[in-house]
Amino acid sequence: MKRIVVALGGNALLRKGQKGTYFEQLNNAKRTAKFLADIIENGYEVVITHGNGPQVGAIMLQNEIAKNVVPPIPLDVANAETQALIGYMIQQSLQNELIKRKIDKEVVTLITQVVVDKDDTAFHNPTKFIGPYYKEEEARALMREKGWVMKPDPRGGWRRVVPSPDPKDIVEKDIICDLVDQGFIIITAGGGGIPVIRENDTYRGVEAVIDKDLASALVGKIVNADTLLILTDVEYAMLNFGTPDQKPIKKIKVKELEKYYEEGHFSPGSMGPKVLACIRFIKWGGERGIIAHLEKSKQALKGETGTIVVP
Amino acid sequence: MKRIVVALGGNALLRKGQKGTYFEQLNNAKRTAKFLADIIENGYEVVITHGNGPQVGAIMLQNEIAKNVVPPIPLDVANAETQALIGYMIQQSLQNELIKRKIDKEVVTLITQVVVDKDDTAFHNPTKFIGPYYKEEEARALMREKGWVMKPDPRGGWRRVVPSPDPKDIVEKDIICDLVDQGFIIITAGGGGIPVIRENDTYRGVEAVIDKDLASALVGKIVNADTLLILTDVEYAMLNFGTPDQKPIKKIKVKELEKYYEEGHFSPGSMGPKVLACIRFIKWGGERGIIAHLEKSKQALKGETGTIVVP
Repeated sequence: MKRIVVALGGNALLRKGQKGTYFEQLNNAKRTAKFLADIIENGYEVVITHGNGPQVGAIMLQNEIAKNVVPPIPLDVANAETQALIGYMIQQSLQNELIKRKIDKEVVTLITQVVVDKDDTAFHNPTKFIGPYYKEEEARALMREKGWVMKPDPRGGWRRVVPSPDPKDIVEKDIICDLVDQGFIIITAGGGGIPVIRENDTYRGVEAVIDKDLASALVGKIVNADTLLILTDVEYAMLNFGTPDQKPIKKIKVKELEKYYEEGHFSPGSMGPKVLACIRFIKWGGERGIIAHLEKSKQALKGETGTIVVP
Repeated sequence: MKRIVVALGGNALLRKGQKGTYFEQLNNAKRTAKFLADIIENGYEVVITHGNGPQVGAIMLQNEIAKNVVPPIPLDVANAETQALIGYMIQQSLQNELIKRKIDKEVVTLITQVVVDKDDTAFHNPTKFIGPYYKEEEARALMREKGWVMKPDPRGGWRRVVPSPDPKDIVEKDIICDLVDQGFIIITAGGGGIPVIRENDTYRGVEAVIDKDLASALVGKIVNADTLLILTDVEYAMLNFGTPDQKPIKKIKVKELEKYYEEGHFSPGSMGPKVLACIRFIKWGGERGIIAHLEKSKQALKGETGTIVVP
């Protein structure tokens, strides 16, 4: 049995120009569920992970707007809520698709805590923009009041920045492995997982954001997957991206890709972590790391499209 | 090995007079985790369920206040979010307590869909108040706009009422049984579970609220538990509650309790469903249904306090 971690990107739930209503997202989830069911029908044991950028932003914004009436929640808790929000949509849509295809398998979402190192240098250098946009004077007040770090966002306005530490371990790993071994389909480490640190034998949530592709590589290592499939809205990672020399990367050995990664071919905020996730996954013993377009997942698994990283 | 479903009431996370900040709730969860760990230490296989009244109210209120900026979510999705919010607090607090006691067990929250009958008469007679309070004219506008049913709440103001259909099945039941059999501790059917109906072989969320005690009895049936322990803020169910003749019910046979239930001794909004949950659990083959105070759970399991329902 082949085992695969499928990491869903933002386009699995939201398409350009949509407002982000629940039913828009649910309809996209139903479409995504067909791609996932295709993979399952092809005999793969599937573990699903997903991003949560727009959804966690929406929840933080609701919390901010309602803060005089309802006490706002910290970021780790907002991440947990997005695991449920997105997990529920995918879980229900995929379960329905499997029933339709007469595939007798249950799907479930696990609220997942991902351990980061409390000494991770990311904590001294927050880089990830989250939540609402503020005017400079509001931002300065929030920095004083709440101890947040805030910076001007290149897209305009000031925003909170949080650390993006490296995922090191998963608290619920035995449960994850058990369920995958028993043939169940799980949705785990959503939004990169709830970031927690371990101090004095105690786990504690921290206000940070873990990259979902790096978390997916870690899930792949833990469940001993053969394939990590990162689904996004482009068909390939590109060399010299955005220049006249840009060139898609098709099948590539991990060593060669690592060289390109170190040369800075990939944007730190988008393609970079996907490439790094594939590199790590292969170095940890995986057979294939694939970056492909959501709608071409079947073709990518046949080797017909996508950036395919091999040992 | 004895197997128990522990249903946590509102006081497991919020105490009277508290505002409901996240850290208040987390501190209460840490305290609740000690009671849960005591039960686990006593050799029980534990399945945890919980209510979500204040939390789902808070999320619906945030959605309402922010609705011009962030598209609001339906009630079934808000329920899912509370499963994550509350589940995460209990999961982390209990995991920490187990580590402290050197008990090597993992805890996880499962996003859980509970099936209700689409022909349940509750759908014609919504009774459960949820979400914010409105003025009459706002309420009438919302009824026209959204098709909501709204009624004056005895506590003042108009509120939305939703159906409270009977829980019939759990979509993720095989996963639940597998994890319990493997010795893992799960938090499931939070807030009574996400209500879904099955139509044309497809599950679909509905805007309703399932009673968490009735859902807990169903969980008990599905995992084949010996004991259903409903933890609340009183020590006993009472006969003639609120009258000078009121009298605590201690150990009682299910047939006798059923007679009292039918005579209307228990308030439909609070003790009634707890009593009914115990009656159902025993009729389905359970050994003991217990209604007890959260802080006396250990004593209740020894038979020293609480209403104890037996076959």
